[in-house]
This record gives sequence, structure tokens and C-alpha cells, in this order.
Amino acid sequence: MSTVTSAVAEAARDLVLELRREVAALHAELPRNELVVWTAGNVSARVPGHDLLVIKPSGVRYEDLTPESMVVTDFEGTLVEGDRSPSSDTAAHGYVYAHLPEVGGVVHTHSTYATAWAARGEEIPCVLTMMADEFGGPIPVGPFAIIGDDSIGRGIVATLQGSRSRAVLMQNHGPFTVGASARAAVKAAVLCEEVARTVHVSRQLGEPLPIDQAHVDALYDRYQNAYGQR
Amino acid sequence: MSTVTSAVAEAARDLVLELRREVAALHAELPRNELVVWTAGNVSARVPGHDLLVIKPSGVRYEDLTPESMVVTDFEGTLVEGDRSPSSDTAAHGYVYAHLPEVGGVVHTHSTYATAWAARGEEIPCVLTMMADEFGGPIPVGPFAIIGDDSIGRGIVATLQGSRSRAVLMQNHGPFTVGASARAAVKAAVLCEEVARTVHVSRQLGEPLPIDQAHVDALYDRYQNAYGQR
Amino acid sequence: MSTVTSAVAEAARDLVLELRREVAALHAELPRNELVVWTAGNVSARVPGHDLLVIKPSGVRYEDLTPESMVVTDFEGTLVEGDRSPSSDTAAHGYVYAHLPEVGGVVHTHSTYATAWAARGEEIPCVLTMMADEFGGPIPVGPFAIIGDDSIGRGIVATLQGSRSRAVLMQNHGPFTVGASARAAVKAAVLCEEVARTVHVSRQLGEPLPIDQAHVDALYDRYQNAYGQR
Amino acid sequence: MSTVTSAVAEAARDLVLELRREVAALHAELPRNELVVWTAGNVSARVPGHDLLVIKPSGVRYEDLTPESMVVTDFEGTLVEGDRSPSSDTAAHGYVYAHLPEVGGVVHTHSTYATAWAARGEEIPCVLTMMADEFGGPIPVGPFAIIGDDSIGRGIVATLQGSRSRAVLMQNHGPFTVGASARAAVKAAVLCEEVARTVHVSRQLGEPLPIDQAHVDALYDRYQNAYGQR
Repeated sequence: MSTVTSAVAEAARDLVLELRREVAALHAELPRNELVVWTAGNVSARVPGHDLLVIKPSGVRYEDLTPESMVVTDFEGTLVEGDRSPSSDTAAHGYVYAHLPEVGGVVHTHSTYATAWAARGEEIPCVLTMMADEFGGPIPVGPFAIIGDDSIGRGIVATLQGSRSRAVLMQNHGPFTVGASARAAVKAAVLCEEVARTVHVSRQLGEPLPIDQAHVDALYDRYQNAYGQR
Repeated sequence: MSTVTSAVAEAARDLVLELRREVAALHAELPRNELVVWTAGNVSARVPGHDLLVIKPSGVRYEDLTPESMVVTDFEGTLVEGDRSPSSDTAAHGYVYAHLPEVGGVVHTHSTYATAWAARGEEIPCVLTMMADEFGGPIPVGPFAIIGDDSIGRGIVATLQGSRSRAVLMQNHGPFTVGASARAAVKAAVLCEEVARTVHVSRQLGEPLPIDQAHVDALYDRYQNAYGQR
Repeated sequence: MSTVTSAVAEAARDLVLELRREVAALHAELPRNELVVWTAGNVSARVPGHDLLVIKPSGVRYEDLTPESMVVTDFEGTLVEGDRSPSSDTAAHGYVYAHLPEVGGVVHTHSTYATAWAARGEEIPCVLTMMADEFGGPIPVGPFAIIGDDSIGRGIVATLQGSRSRAVLMQNHGPFTVGASARAAVKAAVLCEEVARTVHVSRQLGEPLPIDQAHVDALYDRYQNAYGQR
Repeated sequence: MSTVTSAVAEAARDLVLELRREVAALHAELPRNELVVWTAGNVSARVPGHDLLVIKPSGVRYEDLTPESMVVTDFEGTLVEGDRSPSSDTAAHGYVYAHLPEVGGVVHTHSTYATAWAARGEEIPCVLTMMADEFGGPIPVGPFAIIGDDSIGRGIVATLQGSRSRAVLMQNHGPFTVGASARAAVKAAVLCEEVARTVHVSRQLGEPLPIDQAHVDALYDRYQNAYGQR
């Protein structure tokens, strides 16, 4: 492994250290926002300029995560730096980075309401202005796929390429979200669960009112371009 | 901006400082009462005697808010004091202050159950004594409106003027609440979500029993006039 | 008020001080167990050997409650000791103490699921062993009644006298629970909401299976007589 | 009792002390993961090499539990070491250890969603990859049984012996989970409630899609053999 380790350029050292801190800290948002129980969720970040990613080790609880315990892998999920096995979802994260160059962060959870839609294989209709803002339309469903080859990664990428959404509900499994950074992907995971819950609750007592496509487009455009601090 | 800033009278300085503290502190009630995720909600206060309001900056997370980071704007949402862009909902808050002189505070959230009623465009019927106490009747729905002109503000004001309710559910969007103070508006936001949830849960298994209008009136009158410490 | 205050016998001083501490501390259980929002719930304790009770002041938030801020009233709700107005529910608590001598504590909340059953005027059927243990059968519904005379108190007492349950759901209003002590009444309030939620959830997807009356009786008898530390 | 106590071999002393610490600490996971209210749940651990178990005392609140307050009993639930009465569920735990030698830990709760399925006497179908991973199929229902003889223990064992699941929903009562260790049984209790909730939510708006048995088998095999740190 030492030759692989030495392949991590000296110039990338500080960057990787910073990403280890960021990714470790962002994992705390998952239980804090009630997106996960036990160890069932993970955050990763692309190492810019390298075919590498920083991700959670497998089967470790959130309160035990530290910057040092994070692991670095290539896009096939092979360990490059770190003492522990990478998350069993690492190959799916790597496939996304390899095929979607604009993505800097990936999050996977089994958050309750998003996973409930995924279990029915049903997309979440865009009936909330918050949803138009963040996702630009419905949150789509990806195919059923199991761990073992690159079928999860392929399913995520194919579904996201056909949608403005930063979230995809993998059938019977749970949501994956992406963003320009790991922090943006965590935000998308939080909002994905919130809109999944709100639309679910709304549909329990009737049919939510649709939003005109022109309004969805206007909301999405404004939020992506004008919201927040410049 | 210095000329605008100098327009904030010396006598109003201490008042604005106090309102910055109050509004910053009240924002902590939003996540604490589970009314918001990420940055999706805001509280404002009128600066008494001035056509000014104090509000949250745009896109900043609740745990990063301080009295100093709050911003002061006029009722059109133009920045008067502060380093950051005001919340993108500022113009809607300002419209309310400009047209409802008894209002001293405004709150906007996307709280789950209130937003679920809003997505169906359905008012919340008054079937709880707690609801008669605080809202004096049903919580009404306002029109669909998107950011960009004063249509959100007009929708809020027109709906509240036809109701005793301090809360309005803007269609497909979420609740806005008002009060004599920012604190009273936050209380209305908390109770709006609670009655939205309770009536939702009740309706899931049947039809809640109506309360006679005479009883609603008696409860509202007593609560508005006799409740709490004198 | 000094003559009334002096009527609180010297021997009762220490007892009242201890009850002030206990009742203040027990109020923290209400938000902790998610039974209340804002100020909407209260706990009281009988002062043994006196026609007096210790209760929360009106409209004060839970985090601001101290032993000193608690108030002492007679069973009509007239203030005997304390600087603040008693809870607006005090007369209902007092009526219970006056008519049910075995009761040492009373709790009132608007907890979500119990109130949802109350809004439909529907008793909670006894389909959980935990419910048989604690309540000995269904949790009954009391009549619609509003503040202003003793109709709430009468409704609580009449309903509890016809039931083994320590909880009653006042129609369109919310649960009142009783116990041998204030702590036991708080426990009943916590379990009332938990069984209200669990039976609600169970009924959402079908009909819960009934428990034979003989089993309900056996569970109730064992739990009341054998559970916990002797 | 001293002769029984002396039967706890000197060599087992340290082991029992360690298990007291572990079982006391694991009880904190029950309220933390919202599996219990008040005192309604318990964790036990087998004392390896001895027909003994460590369990929570009866009727004590979670925040008052310490390693010292845990009790040691034999498999019939007779107290061997400790000052307090053992949990009223001790005989059920003991029956499981006596009949399932691979089990090192047992957990019992009345967690809301699992208990809601139990109240209908309905197994949870395996429609989530997380469920295939952890439980290898549906979570089965055990018979109605009440405390007083060994019928609860027999019902648990008979149901688990016919299933790959580490969880059983005792009818009208609640879930029992098992694991190689007390920690593994707690994890199963957390995941049992999470899948009970997610499948419930999914079924509220339609029918979840089934997962092919071959995929369930593949997921279960991988997770049991390859997941986590080696």
C-alpha cells in the first residue's frame, strides 16, 4: 500500500486533511437531522484534481468518527489511505464521481420517508415551493440494484442525468444525494427527507395541488442563482 | 449606504440593538420546536416608530446567527444596516408591517404539518379548544404566489384581514404567522404547527367533532383577555 | 392575603416547600416527553391533610419555572400563596382533589395523539398489554366542557368514577390524568400519549386484535400489585 | 442467598462486573433511540459459561441506572446478586438463554411502530434492503402470552427458531430482539423499530414492491459475513 500512498501527491496532503475534517464533521448532521439510525448512512467528498474520495469507514458509529478514522479510496473503492475498511457503499460513491464531474459530494441514507417512497418505487411529485427551489421538479426513483457490482452506481448516475434533481430514491433501498460539495449533498439529503415527509403527510388526507411547470422553473432558477450570501 | 444608516435616528439605536438580540434569540425557537430544517425559516420584528424591520440574513444556519449578523431593512426589503443580504422573504415581511399596523412580529416557516395542509390548499378546521383559544377559528389558506413581486405579502395581508387567525397557510408554500411582538408571532408559529399536526392525526381515523361557534367565541375571548400573568 | 397565608399551618410549611420542588421538577418531564408545546400543560399536587394544592402559574414557560414560582391555591382555585396567577386550569384540578380523595396528583396536557382521539370523541380501545397494565381497560372520553364554571372538573370526575383508567380524554380538548402522587399522574400522562400513538398507528393499517377481558384483568391486577420495587 | 452468591465463581467476578457496566450503558440507547418511555424496556446479557444473566432492576428509570444497580439472576429469574427485584420480564429473557445457546443478549421494548404491527398480529414484510441485510426476511409475530408462566419465553423461542430474524413481535405486546451480544441485540431493536416505521409509512399510501427471495438471500449473506470491520 505504501506505493499507492506515495501516489497521493504532497500537494494534496493538506487538502485531504481538510476533507477528512469536513467529512467527519458532516456525518454529525445525519443523526442530528434524524436521517439515520445506528451506522446506516454515509457522506463522501471528492478530492479535487485526483481520482480519490474521502469516506466513512464501514460499521463505525457516528459518535466514534474522527478525521483520522476517515478513509481515502480510489473510485473503485480500493483503500488508498486509512486503517479501516471503507463503507460498503464506497463503490457507488466512486461511480458517481467518475461519471458526474460536477459532483463534489455524495450522501447516502435510509431516511424514513424518502425510503418509504423508494419502497413503493414512486417518485415524489413537486407540490411544494421548497421542492421546486431545491430539486427543480419531482425526486425520481432509480432501479432496484444490489451491492456486488457497479449496478447501484450506474442506477444513480442514469437517473440523475435525466433530472434536475440532486436526489434519487433507489428502489427498496433509500436516497442518494449529490452536490457541488459534501456540505451541499448533506443539505440535499436533509431537504429530500423533509419534502418526502411533507408530501407524504399531505397525501394522507387528499391530493396536493400541482404547481405549474412555469412556476417550478422560475422558483428553481431564482433559488439556484440568487439565494443565500454572494 | 452611510446616508441611509444615518437616517436611523440616534434614539432608535438602543431599540435596534435590543431587537437584534431578541430576533437572534427567537430564531433558536424554530429548530428547537422542530419547525424548520437547515435555513428554511425566519423571524422578524418591526422597529417601533420607524418604517424598518430586523430580520435574519439569507442562507445562514441557525447556529451561526448572532445579534450582529441580523440585518435591518426598510419595508421594501432594502438593506439599511448590516453586512449581509436580508432573507429572501424580507419583502413579504415588510408588506405585512406596512399594511397591518398592529403587527409587531412576523414568522415564516415550512413546518411539516402546516405545509401539508397548505399543499392541499385546505384550511385547518377549528376542532380543538387550543385552536379556538389562540386562533379564534379555522386557520385559513392564502393564494399561491411566488417570490419576485409583492404577491406573497398581498396574499398574507388579504387573508389575515378576513380572519381572526394569526396564521395563514400560503398555498404549496407554508405558514406565515403574526403577533403583537416577534415573540407572539413565534408562539403562533409553534401552535399553528401543533394544531395542524393534531387535527391531521385526528382526521386520519375519522372526522373530528365540530365545536359550536358560540363556544369558539367564548374560548377566544377568554384567552385573549384573561390568560397569562397581568 | 396574610390571614389566608397564616392559615397554612406551620407544620405544613416544609411539606409545601417539598411539594413546590417536586411539582416544579415534574413540569420538566412534560416537554422532555414531548407532551406539550409552549406553556400548554400543567402538573399539580395535593397538599396532604389540607384542602390545598400546588400548581404551575399561568402562562409561564417551562424553562422559567422554579420552586418559588409555583403557587398554592384552595380547591376553588383561589390563590393562597405565591406572587402569580395560578394556571387557568386550577379549578379543574381542585375539583378533582375535592371529589376523589385517593388522588394526590393531577396532570393536564394537549399531547398530540391523545388529543386527536379526544377531537373525535373516541375512547382508546385496550389492545396493548402496556395499556392493560397501566389503565386496566380503554381510556374513556369525557364531555365537551369549557372553562368558566366547574363543568370540566365535573366531567373529569364523572368519567374517572366509571372507569379503572387514570386518564380521561376531554372531548375536543385533551387528556387529564391522575395518580396517587404527582409523579404517578405524570407517568400516566406519558403512558396515555404512548398508547394513544401506538393504537393510532396500529389502526392506520387495519384493526388491532382485541385482548380478552380476563387477560386485561390479570395484567392490571399483577401490574398494580407486583410491579416495581417494594 | 450467600451460598448462591458464592456459586458465582471467582473467575466470573470480573466478567460480571464488566457485563454490569455494559448492560447499564446499553440501556441509555433505548431512550436515545426513542424505543421506550418511562421504564418500559430492558436489556440483558448472558454471563458466558454460567447459567446466569445480567438485567435491569424492575421499575427503575433509565437515568437512575448504574452498573451497581443491575441485578444478576439465574435462567428462572431468581435473584443471585443485587439489591433490587429483577425486571418483571426476566423469566422471558432467561428462557431464551436456556433454549438458544447462540444468543448472548436479549432486548425487550414497546417501541411504537413495532408494537403497532404486533397489535394487529401482522408480520412486517421484507421490502427494504436494510431489512434483508439485518433480518434476512420478514419480522415474524409470536403468540399472545401473558406474564406468570414461561409462555412468553416459549413463544419467543418457537418463533425465532422458525425464522432468520433476530426480532419477534409478541402479539399485542411488543418486540423482543436477540443477538450474539447485548450490543447486537440493541442494534436489532433499533433496526426493528426503524424498518417497522419505514414499512408502515410506505404502506400508508400504497403497496411496497416485494424484493425477490434470491436478492434477500444475497443481501443477508453479504451483510452477515462481510459488513463492518474485520
